[in-house]
Amino acid sequence: MASVPSVSYSITVRLEVPAGGRAVSQITHVVEHSGGIVSALDVTTAGHEKLRIDVTIATRDTEHAEAIVQAVEAVEDVKIHKVSDRTFLMHLGGKIEMRSKVPLRTRDELSMAYTPGVARVSLAIARNPDDVRRLTIKRNSVAVVTDGSAVLGLGNIGPEAALPVMEGKAALFKRFAEIDAWPICLDTQDTDEIVRTVQIIAPAFGGINLEDISAPRCFEVEARLRELLDIPVFHDDQHGTAICVVAALTNALRVVGKDIGSVRVAMAGAGAAGTAILKLLLHAGVRDVTVCDFRGAVHRGRDDLDESLRWIAENTNADNYAGDLRGAVKDADVFIGVSAPGILSGDDIATMSSDAIVFALANPEPEVSPDDAREHAAVVATGRSDYPNQINNVLAFPGVFRGLLDAQSRTVNSAMLLAAAKALAAVVTDEELGPNYIVPSVFHADVTQAVAAAVREAAGGRSRTEV
Amino acid sequence: MASVPSVSYSITVRLEVPAGGRAVSQITHVVEHSGGIVSALDVTTAGHEKLRIDVTIATRDTEHAEAIVQAVEAVEDVKIHKVSDRTFLMHLGGKIEMRSKVPLRTRDELSMAYTPGVARVSLAIARNPDDVRRLTIKRNSVAVVTDGSAVLGLGNIGPEAALPVMEGKAALFKRFAEIDAWPICLDTQDTDEIVRTVQIIAPAFGGINLEDISAPRCFEVEARLRELLDIPVFHDDQHGTAICVVAALTNALRVVGKDIGSVRVAMAGAGAAGTAILKLLLHAGVRDVTVCDFRGAVHRGRDDLDESLRWIAENTNADNYAGDLRGAVKDADVFIGVSAPGILSGDDIATMSSDAIVFALANPEPEVSPDDAREHAAVVATGRSDYPNQINNVLAFPGVFRGLLDAQSRTVNSAMLLAAAKALAAVVTDEELGPNYIVPSVFHADVTQAVAAAVREAAGGRSRTEV
Repeated sequence: MASVPSVSYSITVRLEVPAGGRAVSQITHVVEHSGGIVSALDVTTAGHEKLRIDVTIATRDTEHAEAIVQAVEAVEDVKIHKVSDRTFLMHLGGKIEMRSKVPLRTRDELSMAYTPGVARVSLAIARNPDDVRRLTIKRNSVAVVTDGSAVLGLGNIGPEAALPVMEGKAALFKRFAEIDAWPICLDTQDTDEIVRTVQIIAPAFGGINLEDISAPRCFEVEARLRELLDIPVFHDDQHGTAICVVAALTNALRVVGKDIGSVRVAMAGAGAAGTAILKLLLHAGVRDVTVCDFRGAVHRGRDDLDESLRWIAENTNADNYAGDLRGAVKDADVFIGVSAPGILSGDDIATMSSDAIVFALANPEPEVSPDDAREHAAVVATGRSDYPNQINNVLAFPGVFRGLLDAQSRTVNSAMLLAAAKALAAVVTDEELGPNYIVPSVFHADVTQAVAAAVREAAGGRSRTEV
Repeated sequence: MASVPSVSYSITVRLEVPAGGRAVSQITHVVEHSGGIVSALDVTTAGHEKLRIDVTIATRDTEHAEAIVQAVEAVEDVKIHKVSDRTFLMHLGGKIEMRSKVPLRTRDELSMAYTPGVARVSLAIARNPDDVRRLTIKRNSVAVVTDGSAVLGLGNIGPEAALPVMEGKAALFKRFAEIDAWPICLDTQDTDEIVRTVQIIAPAFGGINLEDISAPRCFEVEARLRELLDIPVFHDDQHGTAICVVAALTNALRVVGKDIGSVRVAMAGAGAAGTAILKLLLHAGVRDVTVCDFRGAVHRGRDDLDESLRWIAENTNADNYAGDLRGAVKDADVFIGVSAPGILSGDDIATMSSDAIVFALANPEPEVSPDDAREHAAVVATGRSDYPNQINNVLAFPGVFRGLLDAQSRTVNSAMLLAAAKALAAVVTDEELGPNYIVPSVFHADVTQAVAAAVREAAGGRSRTEV
C-alpha cells in the first residue's frame, strides 16, 4: 500500500545542467510525470555555463526512486553526479550520542567528576543505596532492550539489524520525555538468558523498555523480570499499544454515545499486542469481547490453546462462539484488529451494529481498507500516518516512563496503564472531539505531561519538581 | 596524606552578614586560620542592612569542612543558611545524558528516524551485517563494564556505588576522544556470568572497556571475552596503566641516558596493573625484572603460585631471588610500585643504582614519600596530581579506543599497546623532556590524536577521515 510518495523514501539527486536552458523546468516536469514529488531544489554552484543543483524527491519505494533517476538522466544536457538516500544519510554513524553534563575543562573539574572526588559519591551510595537515584543517571535512564526477534514488520532480523530501531526509540524517549535511554541489543533469543541478562545489567537503569521481542516469549520475559527487578519493566509492543487503543476507544465511544460496559467487541489478533489490549479493555470495563486468531474465535473447546490463549478463552467469549472472524464481527459495536492485512471487507463492516467503531491497526496494510470501512462505520482508526486517527505508541510510552521515573516507581501495573489511557483520552476536549479526531497528534504539547502526571499519581509518586 | 585542601572536598556556604561591619573580612580570616582556602566569594543579595554571600571553600576532608563551618558560624553576626558540597552538587541527577543527533521536529523527520523509514536501514543491515558499523552507533560506542568489585581504592562496593565512577569514565571518553560510552554495571561477580552477559550485550557496541573488576577474575574475564567477541576488549586498570608506565619509563630512560634492554627493574605489586605492566615492559625490551608481592619476590620455588604468579615466576627473576622487596630494590635502576602505601623509605631508594628511576604509583599514598625519593633518585613519578610526572590513565584509554574504533578493529593486542606507549612518550619533545616532565599533561592537545594514530596504524586500519 505504499502508493503515495513518502519522505521516508526520499532521495537527493546532485546534478549539473546548462545555466541558460530549460533543463531545470524539464527536470521538475519529468519527476512529477514519473509520480515523484520535488520537495526541495537547491542551486549549490552557479556559473556562467553550468549550474549544480541538489534536487530532493519523495518517491514511493526503491524501484520508484531508480525509475525517477533514470527519467531525469534522460533529460537532454543533464548530468547526474550522485544520488543520496536521505534516510540513509540521516543514519550514518548512528542517531544518538552520549554527552557529558558536567564541564571537564580544568584539573579541578576532573578531580570532582572523576578521581579523587567521585570516590566520596560512590561511598555515599555504598552507605545509602537509595542515593543511587539521586546522584547518578539511574534517576532518568531507561534500557531499550530487544533480542531482534520481531522487529517492526520485518520479523526475526537479529540484534544488529534491530539497532537502528532501538536508536530511534531512544531518540523518541528524549524528544518527547527528556529521558536518557540507551539501546541494549541482545545476542540471544533464549528466554532464560534474556531474563538473566536484563537482571544483571539493571543496576544502572531506572526502567526497562522491552521492544520487539516475539510472542509468546515476551510474556514470560516480562512477567519474570517484573518479579525479579525493583524497577518498572514495560513491554511497549504490548502495553504502549494497549494504552493508545483504550484511550482511542474511550473517545470513539464519546463520539457515538455508547457505554464501554455495554458494547460488544470483536478482536482479531491474539499475539503480544492483542493480549495486552484485551486485558486493558477488560480492566477498563468491557464485558462482551470475542478474540479471533487465524484459526477463528478463541473458545474453550479448542484443542490448540497455549497458556495465553487458554487465559483468553476463559475470560472472554461467554457464549463460547466457535465461528470465524466474520461471524464475530456481525452485530459487534467495535472491531479492533492487530493481526493481518485485508482480512475483512467493507461488506463485513456493514454487518456491524449502527455507529460501528473500527480500529484496523495492522501495518502498513490494515485489516480492512480504511476507505471502505468509513462507508459503513462511524469512527475508523489505523496505525498509519496518512489517515486520521493514527494509533501511535509515541502517544503513550514517553509519558508512561516519565511518570514512572519521577515517582521512582519500582513497578508498573494495570491501574497505572489505565490511568495513562484515561489521561491520554482526556487531552482531546469536547470541542475538539469528532469522528476524525479521537486521539491527539503526537506533537500535541500536553500529551506527555498529561500521561506522566496520571502515571505518577497512580504510582503514588511525588511531583517532578519535588524530587 | 590528604594534607592539602582540595576542590574535590570543596563546599559552598551560603550566609548572611550585616551590610556595614567587618564580618566579611573576618570570615576570610577565620577560614584561612582554620586551614581552608577561599576560592570564591559571591555577594548574591545586597541590601542596606544585610548581605547574602556564597563563600566557596576548599577543605581537606569532610571533618575539616565541618570544623571550618563551625568556625565561620562562631563569627559574630554571621548567620549560616545552607552548606553545599560542590562535588555532590555536580553529581545530582548523574553526569551524562543521551542526546539525539537527528532532529525530530516534524512528522517527516519522525518517519525517517523511526517507522517507516528506519525499516529500510534495518533491512540493509540484515542483508549486509558489516553495515552496522556504518549506519548505527556501533561505530563509535563503548560499553564501560564493571561488577563493582574493585572500585578505585574503595574495594568491593557493588554495581550501584560504582556507577558514578563509570559515568565519570564515560564523560572522559567523550571529553578526550569524542567516544560515546555508556556505563554497564553488573549485578553479578561470577566470572562465567560476567563473560556471558558481556557477550550477549555486545552487538550494539564497538568496544568493551572493562573497569574496576578485581584480580584474578579480571584476567579470565578479559581473556575469554577476547576469544568470544569480534570487538576489542580492554581492561583499563591493566593496559591503560601499562601503556602510561611504559611511556613514562621510555622518557625517564631518555632523561638518564640508559637503555631499556640493560636496566634492572624491581616491581612491587603482582595484581591486575602489576601483571599488565610487567608484560608490556617485557614486550618493550626489558630483560632484567623482579616482581615482589606482599610475600616478597615472586620466584619459582614459592608454593603459593596461582596461574598468574607462576607465569611471572617463569618469565622474570632469572636468578630466582627469594628475598624481600628491599633486597630487590638494591642496585636496581628502576622501581615501579603498584602496591601499598609507605613500604619503602628514602634510605631504600638510596641503595638503588645511580640515576635511579622511581615510579611510586599507589594512590593516594605512594610506596615511598615522593619528597624522600627525590633526594636519592633522578626521576620520580606518582599517580598524584599534586606532584610532577603524574601517571594518569586518561593519557592512554581515550586515544587507544579512538584508534581501535577508527580502524574498526576486531581485537587489541600487545603490538597496539606498545605502539600507544611509544606514541605517548614521543609527545614529549627533546626540548621539553626533563626529570619533572616525562609525561605530557592530560590536557595536552596532541595526546589523544598521537595515541589514536599509532593504534590505528598498528591495527592496520584506515585513517579516520577515510572511514
